[in-house]
Amino acid sequence: MTFPSPLSPAKSQMIGNNPQDQAFAEAVAEGMYKLDNAARGLGIEITEIRPNFARATMTVRDDMVNSHGICHGGMIFTLADTAFAYACNTANKSTVAMSCSISFIAPGKRSELLTAIAEERARQGRNGIFDITVTGEDGRTVAIFQGNSREIRGESVPGFDARR
Amino acid sequence: MTFPSPLSPAKSQMIGNNPQDQAFAEAVAEGMYKLDNAARGLGIEITEIRPNFARATMTVRDDMVNSHGICHGGMIFTLADTAFAYACNTANKSTVAMSCSISFIAPGKRSELLTAIAEERARQGRNGIFDITVTGEDGRTVAIFQGNSREIRGESVPGFDARR
Amino acid sequence: MTFPSPLSPAKSQMIGNNPQDQAFAEAVAEGMYKLDNAARGLGIEITEIRPNFARATMTVRDDMVNSHGICHGGMIFTLADTAFAYACNTANKSTVAMSCSISFIAPGKRSELLTAIAEERARQGRNGIFDITVTGEDGRTVAIFQGNSREIRGESVPGFDARR
Amino acid sequence: MTFPSPLSPAKSQMIGNNPQDQAFAEAVAEGMYKLDNAARGLGIEITEIRPNFARATMTVRDDMVNSHGICHGGMIFTLADTAFAYACNTANKSTVAMSCSISFIAPGKRSELLTAIAEERARQGRNGIFDITVTGEDGRTVAIFQGNSREIRGESVPGFDARR
Repeated sequence: MTFPSPLSPAKSQMIGNNPQDQAFAEAVAEGMYKLDNAARGLGIEITEIRPNFARATMTVRDDMVNSHGICHGGMIFTLADTAFAYACNTANKSTVAMSCSISFIAPGKRSELLTAIAEERARQGRNGIFDITVTGEDGRTVAIFQGNSREIRGESVPGFDARR
Repeated sequence: MTFPSPLSPAKSQMIGNNPQDQAFAEAVAEGMYKLDNAARGLGIEITEIRPNFARATMTVRDDMVNSHGICHGGMIFTLADTAFAYACNTANKSTVAMSCSISFIAPGKRSELLTAIAEERARQGRNGIFDITVTGEDGRTVAIFQGNSREIRGESVPGFDARR
Repeated sequence: MTFPSPLSPAKSQMIGNNPQDQAFAEAVAEGMYKLDNAARGLGIEITEIRPNFARATMTVRDDMVNSHGICHGGMIFTLADTAFAYACNTANKSTVAMSCSISFIAPGKRSELLTAIAEERARQGRNGIFDITVTGEDGRTVAIFQGNSREIRGESVPGFDARR
Repeated sequence: MTFPSPLSPAKSQMIGNNPQDQAFAEAVAEGMYKLDNAARGLGIEITEIRPNFARATMTVRDDMVNSHGICHGGMIFTLADTAFAYACNTANKSTVAMSCSISFIAPGKRSELLTAIAEERARQGRNGIFDITVTGEDGRTVAIFQGNSREIRGESVPGFDARR
């Protein structure tokens, strides 16, 4: 699943009605992605979605490099934060980041494809904790990110439930 | 001081030789900014520099908005992280972020000018802690960011010392 | 104000009815302290209370030292977390720590008196952010702590409002 | 392995010479524990050690309860921080906590046995990141802790290498 290309007809027919379902989770993510100017503008792609899980990729463009000649920490954070957002919204319950921490382990290199994997670590009521790991093309760890989420009112994709 | 426009001749003559000096700090920041594709690409401007202090601004563009219709948390982080980077490199000793935490207090709105102020909170040897506050146009707090920095080898602006 | 000794009669008469009041804040803190086995057991004293502010002290006892021969990081955290708890409960609205971060700057020494100062940094609805600084006897910074609080249901001191 | 009781003769003979070894790691932990007044004073036991891994337990005593009648957050942190310290020192290279974050998920109850498991998440040179999870007797998650460690000079247990 890569959102920059539209879903194939076959996949569209898979879209389910159950928030626990894989197809439901994918449809929510696709709906979010259409509205997510920032992710699209940075070339972030959502390459895997499962309930409470997301994988996202981003290639370090020339305009993402800082004065040290490596990927700006903010861009690495943005990739991780995007994976986090998709992972914590798979049930279409609008969920936002309350606080996040990130540790930078190794630089992201110019032109390198970075991958962020987000998975739920703990949940208590409307609060969740997600672990996100950013890796480089060679599999080395680039950053470790931990996010505290909170479910607020509303749908992740406004009108999504009504449309199905 | 806004780096998108070149320094005026008067200011250029102020550039000093002492890492404690205001003019030195400004010259380092200007040198960093020229290399900082990410900050420039996002329209981030460095509007004030003092030793161990920086102020940066960014207008929330349409391509910085996420699926909730508000400024992507990664963009807010990037603004804060940029102010942090400029504040911890004012002595031209190459200094990087080890780890950062951010709490999101209020959304950043589309088209709004956000301001980040970074200041040193503590220092021990080559480790520093900086507090960064991001505010909106109305002065409300948008995010609280804390960064742990570490001085590594080299100059913040390669060749800077030799050129003066 | 040091809670290990009882309030003097003069101070008792100062206790007010307004959650914004100094006397109210002190009375809440005193009520909390009576129930706070952990703080009392560690010899933590609350030496200053103002609305959304607390100062606490603790002497590093022999039984607080770790295998490095310095104050256990957990004891430094506990001192800071205690100051945080008293600072965020001064309005007698039960408020708990959601998440905290701490950076250790310098060791706490055996027999040294450590001081933690907690103050509110930001607030949004029922969420607050507090900055806590722990210093040694010589004024050096020992640790920097940041806490995210959340107001829940109930009183900080059960039955406090009814008793006044 | 529970350090409050001495190692059995059989186990003592297992103590190895290789920092990668299980027996080496256990011997370092035992050496640290003898010096660790704080852990012993709180009744913390180290119940499992492997290279870069530790499990620790603590029963919530009456003197660990705060004004809310639940385990003081500082005591939960201290248990997690202790597991962290033992996990990051298993190679007998003196390693300290630089910064830690903790999220409180569920209260620790009076008289409850809490367990903390610490494991390495990432490493870069002398810096490490460890994940610690604190659980209650019923297996629920009580807290999520992440620690940034740094190897400094010296041995975790002074004189340990010379004695073997």
